[in-house]
Amino acid sequence: MDSGFEDLGFARLDTGRKERTGFPETVFCQGKEDSFLREIFKRLYEKNGEVLGTRASAAQFEVVKAVLPEVRYDAVSRLLTIQSEEKKQTGNIIVCSAGTADIPVAQEAAGTAEFFGCRVRRIFDAGVSGLHRLLAEESVLKAADCVIAVAGMEGALPSVIGGLVSVPVIAVPTSVGYGANFGGVAALLTMINSCANGVSVVNIDNGYGAGYIASQIKRLAERGNG
Amino acid sequence: MDSGFEDLGFARLDTGRKERTGFPETVFCQGKEDSFLREIFKRLYEKNGEVLGTRASAAQFEVVKAVLPEVRYDAVSRLLTIQSEEKKQTGNIIVCSAGTADIPVAQEAAGTAEFFGCRVRRIFDAGVSGLHRLLAEESVLKAADCVIAVAGMEGALPSVIGGLVSVPVIAVPTSVGYGANFGGVAALLTMINSCANGVSVVNIDNGYGAGYIASQIKRLAERGNG
Amino acid sequence: MDSGFEDLGFARLDTGRKERTGFPETVFCQGKEDSFLREIFKRLYEKNGEVLGTRASAAQFEVVKAVLPEVRYDAVSRLLTIQSEEKKQTGNIIVCSAGTADIPVAQEAAGTAEFFGCRVRRIFDAGVSGLHRLLAEESVLKAADCVIAVAGMEGALPSVIGGLVSVPVIAVPTSVGYGANFGGVAALLTMINSCANGVSVVNIDNGYGAGYIASQIKRLAERGNG
Amino acid sequence: MDSGFEDLGFARLDTGRKERTGFPETVFCQGKEDSFLREIFKRLYEKNGEVLGTRASAAQFEVVKAVLPEVRYDAVSRLLTIQSEEKKQTGNIIVCSAGTADIPVAQEAAGTAEFFGCRVRRIFDAGVSGLHRLLAEESVLKAADCVIAVAGMEGALPSVIGGLVSVPVIAVPTSVGYGANFGGVAALLTMINSCANGVSVVNIDNGYGAGYIASQIKRLAERGNG
Amino acid sequence: MDSGFEDLGFARLDTGRKERTGFPETVFCQGKEDSFLREIFKRLYEKNGEVLGTRASAAQFEVVKAVLPEVRYDAVSRLLTIQSEEKKQTGNIIVCSAGTADIPVAQEAAGTAEFFGCRVRRIFDAGVSGLHRLLAEESVLKAADCVIAVAGMEGALPSVIGGLVSVPVIAVPTSVGYGANFGGVAALLTMINSCANGVSVVNIDNGYGAGYIASQIKRLAERGNG
Amino acid sequence: MDSGFEDLGFARLDTGRKERTGFPETVFCQGKEDSFLREIFKRLYEKNGEVLGTRASAAQFEVVKAVLPEVRYDAVSRLLTIQSEEKKQTGNIIVCSAGTADIPVAQEAAGTAEFFGCRVRRIFDAGVSGLHRLLAEESVLKAADCVIAVAGMEGALPSVIGGLVSVPVIAVPTSVGYGANFGGVAALLTMINSCANGVSVVNIDNGYGAGYIASQIKRLAERGNG
Amino acid sequence: MDSGFEDLGFARLDTGRKERTGFPETVFCQGKEDSFLREIFKRLYEKNGEVLGTRASAAQFEVVKAVLPEVRYDAVSRLLTIQSEEKKQTGNIIVCSAGTADIPVAQEAAGTAEFFGCRVRRIFDAGVSGLHRLLAEESVLKAADCVIAVAGMEGALPSVIGGLVSVPVIAVPTSVGYGANFGGVAALLTMINSCANGVSVVNIDNGYGAGYIASQIKRLAERGNG
Amino acid sequence: MDSGFEDLGFARLDTGRKERTGFPETVFCQGKEDSFLREIFKRLYEKNGEVLGTRASAAQFEVVKAVLPEVRYDAVSRLLTIQSEEKKQTGNIIVCSAGTADIPVAQEAAGTAEFFGCRVRRIFDAGVSGLHRLLAEESVLKAADCVIAVAGMEGALPSVIGGLVSVPVIAVPTSVGYGANFGGVAALLTMINSCANGVSVVNIDNGYGAGYIASQIKRLAERGNG
Repeated sequence: MDSGFEDLGFARLDTGRKERTGFPETVFCQGKEDSFLREIFKRLYEKNGEVLGTRASAAQFEVVKAVLPEVRYDAVSRLLTIQSEEKKQTGNIIVCSAGTADIPVAQEAAGTAEFFGCRVRRIFDAGVSGLHRLLAEESVLKAADCVIAVAGMEGALPSVIGGLVSVPVIAVPTSVGYGANFGGVAALLTMINSCANGVSVVNIDNGYGAGYIASQIKRLAERGNG
Repeated sequence: MDSGFEDLGFARLDTGRKERTGFPETVFCQGKEDSFLREIFKRLYEKNGEVLGTRASAAQFEVVKAVLPEVRYDAVSRLLTIQSEEKKQTGNIIVCSAGTADIPVAQEAAGTAEFFGCRVRRIFDAGVSGLHRLLAEESVLKAADCVIAVAGMEGALPSVIGGLVSVPVIAVPTSVGYGANFGGVAALLTMINSCANGVSVVNIDNGYGAGYIASQIKRLAERGNG
Repeated sequence: MDSGFEDLGFARLDTGRKERTGFPETVFCQGKEDSFLREIFKRLYEKNGEVLGTRASAAQFEVVKAVLPEVRYDAVSRLLTIQSEEKKQTGNIIVCSAGTADIPVAQEAAGTAEFFGCRVRRIFDAGVSGLHRLLAEESVLKAADCVIAVAGMEGALPSVIGGLVSVPVIAVPTSVGYGANFGGVAALLTMINSCANGVSVVNIDNGYGAGYIASQIKRLAERGNG
Repeated sequence: MDSGFEDLGFARLDTGRKERTGFPETVFCQGKEDSFLREIFKRLYEKNGEVLGTRASAAQFEVVKAVLPEVRYDAVSRLLTIQSEEKKQTGNIIVCSAGTADIPVAQEAAGTAEFFGCRVRRIFDAGVSGLHRLLAEESVLKAADCVIAVAGMEGALPSVIGGLVSVPVIAVPTSVGYGANFGGVAALLTMINSCANGVSVVNIDNGYGAGYIASQIKRLAERGNG
Repeated sequence: MDSGFEDLGFARLDTGRKERTGFPETVFCQGKEDSFLREIFKRLYEKNGEVLGTRASAAQFEVVKAVLPEVRYDAVSRLLTIQSEEKKQTGNIIVCSAGTADIPVAQEAAGTAEFFGCRVRRIFDAGVSGLHRLLAEESVLKAADCVIAVAGMEGALPSVIGGLVSVPVIAVPTSVGYGANFGGVAALLTMINSCANGVSVVNIDNGYGAGYIASQIKRLAERGNG
Repeated sequence: MDSGFEDLGFARLDTGRKERTGFPETVFCQGKEDSFLREIFKRLYEKNGEVLGTRASAAQFEVVKAVLPEVRYDAVSRLLTIQSEEKKQTGNIIVCSAGTADIPVAQEAAGTAEFFGCRVRRIFDAGVSGLHRLLAEESVLKAADCVIAVAGMEGALPSVIGGLVSVPVIAVPTSVGYGANFGGVAALLTMINSCANGVSVVNIDNGYGAGYIASQIKRLAERGNG
Repeated sequence: MDSGFEDLGFARLDTGRKERTGFPETVFCQGKEDSFLREIFKRLYEKNGEVLGTRASAAQFEVVKAVLPEVRYDAVSRLLTIQSEEKKQTGNIIVCSAGTADIPVAQEAAGTAEFFGCRVRRIFDAGVSGLHRLLAEESVLKAADCVIAVAGMEGALPSVIGGLVSVPVIAVPTSVGYGANFGGVAALLTMINSCANGVSVVNIDNGYGAGYIASQIKRLAERGNG
Repeated sequence: MDSGFEDLGFARLDTGRKERTGFPETVFCQGKEDSFLREIFKRLYEKNGEVLGTRASAAQFEVVKAVLPEVRYDAVSRLLTIQSEEKKQTGNIIVCSAGTADIPVAQEAAGTAEFFGCRVRRIFDAGVSGLHRLLAEESVLKAADCVIAVAGMEGALPSVIGGLVSVPVIAVPTSVGYGANFGGVAALLTMINSCANGVSVVNIDNGYGAGYIASQIKRLAERGNG
């Protein structure tokens, strides 16, 4: 086994990841010191020619932009990206959110999938307390390669979608809500206990993780594994 | 305040309850000793001319039948009842369950409401993973005085119903499920965090409580308060 | 099924809700971006001629007032309302709170019920550690169509009221307290486990939800369902 | 410090406890092997002339009776006792239970206090859903040295009593209930969060502990500390 | 919308599911009454020509066999199946378990995927405390369409696999363990918090759910969505 | 029953409490609005000639001082008091804390007991990791009427003291600690599960509650109940 | 890396473990099927010349004895062992338990350490409610290489020992207790939050794990690492 | 027993600790008042000639430096130290962290062990999602006296290391992560449930505790106990 990493002391960059998994290492920006962040972005950009950072603050955007002016920032999803303009987006991923307050997480999922080459369609504010808003999109949903369902509060959306489609539903609980929602745990439990088939779950507010898995599935749907 | 109770030593029968609340005291049979149960049924029957017992075992049915031969037992709902044959059932309560395994709790709710004079319609196995099974009953649901929604697993049913009707939805989480359902807590949290209006919640497997509240609401719907 | 919603991109306004449920869609203001909030209020006002917003900040009040000068704000309940002056209030809803610190939630419940056309009577600071303060109102309580019982700390108030009245008690746990109250979870559990009949529960601090259900019940008490 | 204990290998009997605390060591029988139990009872009886065992099964009663025929067993409280007949009972401890199902724990508390020389008055089935059953005893409660309040379900009884009396209330949550009572945790939290003054709490179903503390308080009330 | 279900009273069979989702309705046998189970199997067999039942007991096997002699039972996975002999298995799903005690859940996953037409390879007892047992299969893992990782105790296996492969990893926590594993919750949390990309999670012991999703992914990998 | 309270609208002052319980109503200041606080202090001072407020901020001290210049404030315990100078302190209450960080809670307990007429001795920073610091005070502890044991972190202090003394130990868990202390819940559980006799528990950081109970016990020790 | 394991299909025996870690693989017997257990014991015995099995039932002992007559079983610790008679025991490990009911776990720890070559001294029933029973052994404790402290209920023993000795204390929470002990979680939290230095914690009832670590430490104390 | 402590009123300095445990008392700085902190540092420095403070803020550093100019501060680990320059560092402790965000806790562990005389090697950012980064150090790990494994998120690192080495692994969960990591509880549970032998656990973020235990073990490895 070749080393496959670069030791910066404070970080061991997984330079072999793209080869192993097909996607380069992503940077979880939240809580990273400025000097670390700057160095990590630079080395990954040199290595891979593109970088995706998640949970970045506006201040961190400035830190990175000072050394890599081509970096872009989306304040809603908090994604920090450097990539070639002409990246082609294919496939058909749908990101569906239950409420307006779930949009930041939904956008993180959508933006991640787009970074990894997916074509994404967004259906926002289609929660189960007004089902007709979702059912109006039934045929759209049925055509997807994969559906990402983002919901806080009671988190029932993935169960309903799971009953309508034939492809995997990636459920993302959000911390949206109050009282006995326990910062998203109630929605997480709802999704883990879903009576619908085809639903699997990622961590609370982990839009990135859902976008990553959707990208894996879309890649399989396009060309099979190998 | 007149005493309003009878002290049996092991129990203080709330003989004033019917006057205060409109319904006589109900007996929670589970765990009661045979001698206590027998005595309580006898005194309440003498006082009120009818008795409702919940969570009774088949053995407890035999204990009570030995002294009160007119008692009846329903093995699914585990209700033990003595009542006059001709009790009139009015109003329109719907009891809706998500799965087949939720039927015992749903029947406890339905049987309780019937004991308290309600006409009840049952819609069983109409969970959200196959929404068309519920939507087929939309007009029936809209005509109810009150809907009792019984669900285990992820417990999403009340949210969906809450979005369809204009009357209160009494949500009953059940302990049906496995793994991270925590004996019904997952369903309870789903219901408490419901994004739909008009949903309030009773304890896990508390079909009785839901049937009682539905009866109160139906009574108000029929004749107002007073 | 007609579409029944308006897609703003960031929100799918449930314009069919008033027809389905009898009450128009309410706006949960907390965390909504200013531009979203402004647009949602405008469209709902155009559609329904009245709007109720909950959990609004003083700053959000200013945002909405800039485009809809007729909006009003109550700083205690945090309700934001636009409605015709002459709305008639009927029925008899009682909102009872255990402590002074529970007043904001109690006022949210009361204000919501008033918005939906209820006449409301308030009984504040009548917790169980000085029972005489509650028992002094026993005859008032007995005359209600529905009682909303708001309590933090140990949350015992609904059980006591449930034993006194013949109508539904909507229990609202609040996050008032400290230590092992777990932000209201202790009160929620107390209420869910209530030994009194007729008690159902909404989420912690969800005064709005309780006011909504009380309005449904009052409507049924006045004219039956239909 | 003299050794103050006897090492049996499997147990270090705290023979100095009576001197330190005024009461001899009690035996928690549950789960003890027969041979251990027999030996422990014998040695404590030799040392102290009396023994109290808690949570004993009927089978354990037989085990001890085989070597100590004077032992007595109460099947409800599960107390196993050897004591001189003429033990004088003084003071005024009240044991109050919320429901009939709480009686075993309440009897453990009462029996323990009696073993330690207290006069005990029992008020059973006086829960808060029918307050008049408790208020009828208000003057009796006010005369106590200490009140033990035993309750399962939502556990509201100690708060109500705490508001009525001037002496300490020892609250004992019981595991009676179902669903979200979590084996007594809901009642425990209610009691720990009590808004009434003078309420302190022992473990779920720990009638023994409450009876012990009541005995300490009664002893102080009779002769002060010393 | 055509009805798409058959109402048996106790169950609303989702006869439209195969059309909507590509796979027929599965029967969760656990806790179903014999008469219900028999009827449900018969109707689904008539409708779909094959049936899959999960969590079946040996006694339930006998119940179904009495009316449908072609049914088969696997005592380890507890799957009850009726299917045509010649079902072709294609694709490449790997089911990997951490310990020997996780085998029943792993077999449920494997058997489900096989029922839905997948070719499955099993790698059992390859937990992280002896990594070489897993790393020996690295090239096998890299060739999969999807990996199902089944683990109890601390549940670290999916994270390690997620770092090695380029396809989705479906993580199945099991209830295997003791003490602070909380019946599988510890493993569930480990998996939900996985630092590896591509890992999504189903409920504790839900081998069926993982096998279902793997089958969806394999189907997409073979022929794309449509 | 005479009314026994004064209705201020926002509060129902329990003016009958001193008669019922021997101590006047205490004011929980935290979160009270300035106008409410000022009014409550004034009315209680007029009624009782003394007032105790807990959890007061320095700003609240100023608010009250503006209308009642005789009020005093202790910044560590956060107690706000108005009382006659010559209040006599009798009895022997010991307040023992495990660590330096527990001092604010310990002082709240001590100050409360002093307000209610107790003589208090403080033993601070005597936690179980250096037992000799506690054992040096063994004879002092044995002479107490009641011991208040205040501890955060693992909260083991009350168990050790409970084994040394013959009087009740009031255990106060504090929120001091980090990580898996869960804001004091770990210490609370330790104390509730204490293997020592004579230990009862109040809420996390509830020094006031412990001081109140100690005062009740000291009063009983001095003059019996009556 | 050489394979270092043997694939039995249902198990991948970690035959390289003794070389990597110095101790051969142990068998967790609980829940293993008879045929698996028999095969695993045989192969490990052939490979290592000795085997340790934990959590074995008496029936499993018979299963193994049928093929390996030299196996021995201790019914208290539930250890199943095959080893050469003349294994030398050196070093000085102390296993200390808080109560009599903790003995099975304490014996599992002691027996494990003995299997791995340690000399073990047992001090049982020395819990903190009678500290003199522990302090009597202070000089014995100070002479240990490592102390294993086993406790249920509130689990305070390790903190007290940690304050007395200069060597590591391995804390083992047990599931002994009732009520809010949560099957040992309360004791686990106490130990994790210990204010004493030198205390680390293993899983509830994991006597084996503690014995293993003590053996590692004793080995280091004897000959250093290498 | 000689007193062994110095009573400062607000603190009882454990001056006998160095004699009992081999290491002097450490100061937990967080939350200590300036005047207390200054006094404690001065007295401990006079007594022991060196002091270690943990969780110190930069402001606290200034407070101590004003009276003890020789004090040093490390802003990452937040350690405050006074020691002689020539302290010799021996042995071989490895501190391994899973991610970059875990470095502060890892440095607290490393700095503590160095203060207590250990030679420490750091391996940072070697988490299980890129195993090759850890396996590259396998021979280094095998040579350690003790390994400290620091990890947040799912906390799987200690299990993997435990399978590779023959010495104790001290596992330190960190609060790094989000969503259902519960501030480090998920990682703590992972580590407590580790299937690897030789792993024991300290509190979340308790780098100090791990460094202390590693120092105890290294001392034993060097010279045995005594």
